[in-house]
Amino acid sequence: MNKRIIITIAREYGSGGREVGKQLADKLKIPFYDKELITMAARESGFKTELFEKNDEQVDYSNNYLTAIGYVLGSPVAGLTDISMNDELHFIQTNVITQLAEKGSCVIVGRCADYVLRNDPDMVSVFITGNQEDKVLRIVNEYHTAALDEAEALMAKTDKRRGNYYNYYTNRDWKDAQHYDLCVNSSVLGVEKTADLIAAFIEMRNA
Amino acid sequence: MNKRIIITIAREYGSGGREVGKQLADKLKIPFYDKELITMAARESGFKTELFEKNDEQVDYSNNYLTAIGYVLGSPVAGLTDISMNDELHFIQTNVITQLAEKGSCVIVGRCADYVLRNDPDMVSVFITGNQEDKVLRIVNEYHTAALDEAEALMAKTDKRRGNYYNYYTNRDWKDAQHYDLCVNSSVLGVEKTADLIAAFIEMRNA
Repeated sequence: MNKRIIITIAREYGSGGREVGKQLADKLKIPFYDKELITMAARESGFKTELFEKNDEQVDYSNNYLTAIGYVLGSPVAGLTDISMNDELHFIQTNVITQLAEKGSCVIVGRCADYVLRNDPDMVSVFITGNQEDKVLRIVNEYHTAALDEAEALMAKTDKRRGNYYNYYTNRDWKDAQHYDLCVNSSVLGVEKTADLIAAFIEMRNA
Repeated sequence: MNKRIIITIAREYGSGGREVGKQLADKLKIPFYDKELITMAARESGFKTELFEKNDEQVDYSNNYLTAIGYVLGSPVAGLTDISMNDELHFIQTNVITQLAEKGSCVIVGRCADYVLRNDPDMVSVFITGNQEDKVLRIVNEYHTAALDEAEALMAKTDKRRGNYYNYYTNRDWKDAQHYDLCVNSSVLGVEKTADLIAAFIEMRNA
C-alpha cells in the first residue's frame, strides 16, 4: 500500500467484523489494531491493562455529557473536574487512535475510530453487519457459548452496549448507514470475500 | 447475467442512487424499474398515472396501520375497509414489484422493494448515501433548484418523506445498515464506480 489509508471498522457482535479487518490488514500489509490498542493505551497512561478491559466500550451515564464532549474534542473542558473512569479511558484511547493514524496506514476496529478520525481525508469508514442466524452461530462456535438463546442474549446486550457507547461519545446513531463510507453484510460473501470487497473499494478509491 | 439476480436500491435524495441503479442495470444488461414501475402499476389498476405521481412514496397517517400491514403481507385484512388511497397505491405497486421480480433479473429503485422481496433468495439490497455537500450540489445541478438553502430544505423534506414511507410500510428504520446487504456512500467513488463496486459485489456473491 503506497498511499496512506486509514480503515476504521465498526461491527455488529458476531458479524466477523474483527476478522474481516484482520484479513484486510494482512491483504494490504498494514498494521491492525484492536485489543493491541488497549494495551498500548494502558502502557502509555500507566493504568493497569485489566482496568481497560473491564471498562472497554462501556458508558458511565452518571457522568456529565459535556465532560465527555470535551474529551472527544481532544482536551478536557476547563472547570469540569468530575471525569469518570470511563471517560478518562475513552480520552486516552482517542489520543492513541490519533497517534496510530498519524504513524501511517492501518486498520482500526471499534472504539469510535471513524468519529475520532472523521476529519482525516485518508480515512475510510466501514460497518460490518450480518444475518441474525449467522451471527448467533458464530458466537456459539467462536466464543464457546453453550446455548443459542444465551448467544442471542449476549449478542443483543453487546450490540446495545456498543451502540450506547458510540452514541454517547459521537451523538450519532451507530447503525446509521449515512455515517459510513461502506456497510457490508458479511453473511452475503463470508469473511474472506468481504475483506476482498473492501480492498477493491479502497483500490477503486485510490485509483 | 445468467443467474437470476434482483437488485433493490434505496437511496438518499441527491445521492445519485437512481443513476447508480440505471448504470448497474445497463452494465448487467437487465431491466431497470423506477418511474416505469408507477406507469405499469397505473395501467394495471386503471388509476390515472397522475394520481400515482401525486401520491408517490407518501404516507397517509389518517389511515389504520393494520390495514397497511395487511396490504404489505399481500392481501387486504378482512373486515378492514377503510383503505386510504396511499395504501391502495402502495398495495398495487407491491404487486407489480413482485410480478416484475418473478419475470427475471432486474434493478428496482425505491418503493420498499427490498422489504417486499425480502424472502427472495436472489435479492440483493443496496442503500446509497452521499456526503451532504455533494447531495446539495447534485440537487442544484440536476433538479434546477436555484439556491443552496432551497436544495437543502428539499433534501431534508424528501428524505424525511422517504424514511416515513419506508417505516410506515415496513416497521424498519430506513437508514439502518442492518437491513441492507450493501450500503455505499456515492461521494467516495462517484456514480459510475459505485455501480462498478455493486457489480463486483454481485459477481463475488454469484461466484
